[in-house]
Amino acid sequence: MSKMTKIEIITRANKLEELKSALNSIGVEGMTVSQVYGCGLQKGHKEVYRGREYSINLVPKIKLETVVCDVPVEQILSVSQKVLCTDQVGDGKIFVYTIDNAMRIRTGTQGTKAITDDEA
Amino acid sequence: MSKMTKIEIITRANKLEELKSALNSIGVEGMTVSQVYGCGLQKGHKEVYRGREYSINLVPKIKLETVVCDVPVEQILSVSQKVLCTDQVGDGKIFVYTIDNAMRIRTGTQGTKAITDDEA
Amino acid sequence: MSKMTKIEIITRANKLEELKSALNSIGVEGMTVSQVYGCGLQKGHKEVYRGREYSINLVPKIKLETVVCDVPVEQILSVSQKVLCTDQVGDGKIFVYTIDNAMRIRTGTQGTKAITDDEA
Ligand SMILES: Nc1ncnc2c1ncn2[C@@H]1O[C@H](COP(=O)(O)OP(=O)(O)OP(=O)(O)O)[C@@H](O)[C@H]1O
Ligand SMILES: Nc1ncnc2c1ncn2[C@@H]1O[C@H](COP(=O)(O)OP(=O)(O)OP(=O)(O)O)[C@@H](O)[C@H]1O
Ligand SMILES: Nc1ncnc2c1ncn2[C@@H]1O[C@H](COP(=O)(O)OP(=O)(O)OP(=O)(O)O)[C@@H](O)[C@H]1O
Ligand SMILES: [Mg+2]
Ligand SMILES: [Mg+2]
Ligand SMILES: [Mg+2]
Repeated sequence: MSKMTKIEIITRANKLEELKSALNSIGVEGMTVSQVYGCGLQKGHKEVYRGREYSINLVPKIKLETVVCDVPVEQILSVSQKVLCTDQVGDGKIFVYTIDNAMRIRTGTQGTKAITDDEA
Repeated sequence: MSKMTKIEIITRANKLEELKSALNSIGVEGMTVSQVYGCGLQKGHKEVYRGREYSINLVPKIKLETVVCDVPVEQILSVSQKVLCTDQVGDGKIFVYTIDNAMRIRTGTQGTKAITDDEA
Repeated sequence: MSKMTKIEIITRANKLEELKSALNSIGVEGMTVSQVYGCGLQKGHKEVYRGREYSINLVPKIKLETVVCDVPVEQILSVSQKVLCTDQVGDGKIFVYTIDNAMRIRTGTQGTKAITDDEA
């Protein structure tokens, strides 16, 4: 079984549509999104969200998670970075994890086939 | 220390109670649930949620996470699949991760004892 | 590249500010918080949230995630435990994972530098 990787992207909520399209265009289709609150390494730099300044508080963000195997991780990182970079503090973080197994519930298929083949 | 595994189940919100009971019945008691939005490998197949069709957009789902060590992962996968499978696209995905350590905050207990013994 | 670790803390919502301050004070600054619902290993012990008793149902909690490399994991565990322990059931759980890579989106920096240096 080839390696499966989870990529977790935490970024600005208003970038979601653009990020989703960019990922789709390189073959990443399965993804899960949630609403989160966060803070980064702000040392005296304030982050702005809807006209309000945040330095200590938790700023609303989205977290997008996708488990992949065929699309190279480096390509996902570079495409995401290009779409999400605004040069302002608070653009976000990407974290990469190894995962052990996956299952498509409808078919019971396990392993990389669970996240690659469209068995409809 | 025996292996600890995180199992992440992303599925339809209306299946939560049934899934929770099925997991309880095989000895899985600790779990964490969150509301998420997602899309899978839909190539021309639309997914229906509360009478509305989704093909491109993100469909509401739940994510259930449980960290286990005694209950076999394969049993959790098969029991969950049985409960969650409707034969319709959008039944969801299960992802399996290895975790390094756990702590029960109340007692400070680490390792597998943190997720197995009820030290009340 | 030195090891990067994700620490996931699931605990009572009313402890968030105190936990955030305690983590900040030992050098943990980047973190992501989300609202979750959970249950633990309750065998006959009821958990109370806003005056209501929960034994079977899912109790509202928060999940705080932080990816670190310089601050020792054991220190994060012990500081968090000290702040979060109330001696009542439901204080929560901490889970520890190994992560493979990180990127700061604004700069494209990867690896441990992505989560340590403030390149503003
Ligand atoms: N070490 C971390 N662990 C977990 N989540 C993090 C971490 N660092 C940042 N985050 C999440 O990413 C979001 C955006 O972080 P942010 O882009 O501000 O990082 P940063 O290191 O401060 O970079 P910048 O200087 O560009 O602002 C935060 O609000 C938080 O949700
Ligand atoms: N590769 C993935 N990475 C992360 N989350 C995913 C992935 N694939 C699916 N998901 C999550 O699981 C949910 C359900 O996926 P879904 O069951 O539609 O998968 P699928 O592969 O399209 O299978 P099916 O053909 O049965 O619909 C999605 O809405 C999304 O939240
Ligand atoms: N094994 C687990 N996997 C995933 N999440 C868990 C697990 N155990 C607990 N949790 C999460 O942590 C929250 C708090 O758990 P809790 O503190 O009640 O654990 P416990 O083992 O029952 O300890 P205590 O006896 O002190 O109550 C739960 O509501 C749930 O969100
Ligand atoms: Mg920042
Ligand atoms: Mg699908
Ligand atoms: Mg409990």
